[in-house]
Amino acid sequence: MAPPVKNAVRAAAAPTEEWSSQPEVTAAHPPKNAAGDGDRRPISTVLIIIAMQTEALPLVNKFHLSEDIDGSLFPKGVPWVRYHGIYKELHINLVWTGKDSILGVDSIGTISASLVSYASIQALKPDLIINAGTAGGFKAKGACVADVYLVSNVAFHDRRIPIHVGKLSTGDSLDMSPQDEVLILANDAVVKDMEGAAVAYVADLLSVPAIFIKAVTNTVDGQKSIAEEFLQNLIAVCTTLAQTVSQVVDFISGVYQIIGIRKSTSVYRKLYINTDEYYILKIMYQFA
Amino acid sequence: MAPPVKNAVRAAAAPTEEWSSQPEVTAAHPPKNAAGDGDRRPISTVLIIIAMQTEALPLVNKFHLSEDIDGSLFPKGVPWVRYHGIYKELHINLVWTGKDSILGVDSIGTISASLVSYASIQALKPDLIINAGTAGGFKAKGACVADVYLVSNVAFHDRRIPIHVGKLSTGDSLDMSPQDEVLILANDAVVKDMEGAAVAYVADLLSVPAIFIKAVTNTVDGQKSIAEEFLQNLIAVCTTLAQTVSQVVDFISGVYQIIGIRKSTSVYRKLYINTDEYYILKIMYQFA
Repeated sequence: MAPPVKNAVRAAAAPTEEWSSQPEVTAAHPPKNAAGDGDRRPISTVLIIIAMQTEALPLVNKFHLSEDIDGSLFPKGVPWVRYHGIYKELHINLVWTGKDSILGVDSIGTISASLVSYASIQALKPDLIINAGTAGGFKAKGACVADVYLVSNVAFHDRRIPIHVGKLSTGDSLDMSPQDEVLILANDAVVKDMEGAAVAYVADLLSVPAIFIKAVTNTVDGQKSIAEEFLQNLIAVCTTLAQTVSQVVDFISGVYQIIGIRKSTSVYRKLYINTDEYYILKIMYQFA
Repeated sequence: MAPPVKNAVRAAAAPTEEWSSQPEVTAAHPPKNAAGDGDRRPISTVLIIIAMQTEALPLVNKFHLSEDIDGSLFPKGVPWVRYHGIYKELHINLVWTGKDSILGVDSIGTISASLVSYASIQALKPDLIINAGTAGGFKAKGACVADVYLVSNVAFHDRRIPIHVGKLSTGDSLDMSPQDEVLILANDAVVKDMEGAAVAYVADLLSVPAIFIKAVTNTVDGQKSIAEEFLQNLIAVCTTLAQTVSQVVDFISGVYQIIGIRKSTSVYRKLYINTDEYYILKIMYQFA
């Protein structure tokens, strides 16, 4: 692990062998892809998926997005909220999972995240998904509050079926049961959230590239109460998160092209091993 | 609890106070609903959601359903499979979540179940959802292998956020961690599956009535290995399940009308408290 750099994107893991065996190039000149030029097109529509209003609002302000008011994008009854606008020639769509109509709280967790991913991909045909949000960090892996991580791999930790070892571990609880802990450690996770792997599952299913940017609100393996620390840091960390997402979007704008998606052949839900995503990850290391 | 009746639908719980305070009527003569006659229409399209091929095939045979071969119903890339046909003037659609393209196993669990529910509701506009499948049963609550349960309430047990106390408890694991056990017991569950609450969540979101029929393949709180017992009983229990679903569909055909959905005001994801569903539950008790 690189030493912590406050308020900067840090890769959640060094590039794997797979990546480091790729030739290093600048994103401004993406190479031709085996898939052929026919697949090549610039990123035009970006879909940002967010689970909490507190995470969403700084980004809505930063990109000067407007809320959909006609509500025609999604079916009647769902609480999902779309904000949209043009920023540096990119069509930015931010979809927040909204408030649960019965509980009145943010619709967090994997089911809402997967449904919103599916419905938004169908409705908006994005060229790139960014799942941005807060996360718990593992002190033992060097994660500190307010660090922002670019995620290299995602995995679920609360399902005991074969899964890929990853760096972000996703489950439907803010806290961590002893059994979760065993699986999160097995996933070698540095950060833990409640949505990432669900977004990754749907993005993979529908072949849309996705990146995951997670800002640490609390330590998972520390002495403090997770819920307390989360609430204490939430607003400040969301500002940091918005700054980082903005940097990423600035980078994407006009520079990066998607050539194709190559599916993983060896592991479950592994993303980011197509060469293009390799470049974006490489470039993003330079933020740190 | 009523004494166990082998191979018959058993209500997972006696009607609650809420229900028993409703006037008892026959389903053949549904009363006028407060929502008005405008909402009244017969059940015409039924959507059966199934997670495993072994659960699906006996039903496909029973109803003489054909598999969609043009694949136009769902987006490219998803493994979901739809079978359809006409049975007793009902349009029966059975959607199986399909095989995971990487792992080659059934797409079980809450995320696939919620996505298939969402996409199928959008595409097929069903009047009623039936989520049928196998489940683990709690010996301490009187559940035995091959019993078939009609579920009165559903809840998630693997998310530590406020949830309703229910009789079916859903989570993303076949086995049960000690922490899951505490929450399942708190849910007062008689049966435990991996999809029900996810289907209920989406059905509730999109205001489609749903019933849940779960056949017990294994004891969750017994001495035997859950996975072993599950595999041992799976095929036989799926035949029983298909018989029961067929009985339920026979009952629905030409008798039952949906008048409207009333959302629960007090609890999370509580279904079945509209008067119409009360009737169907009442009638279905008579199977036992």
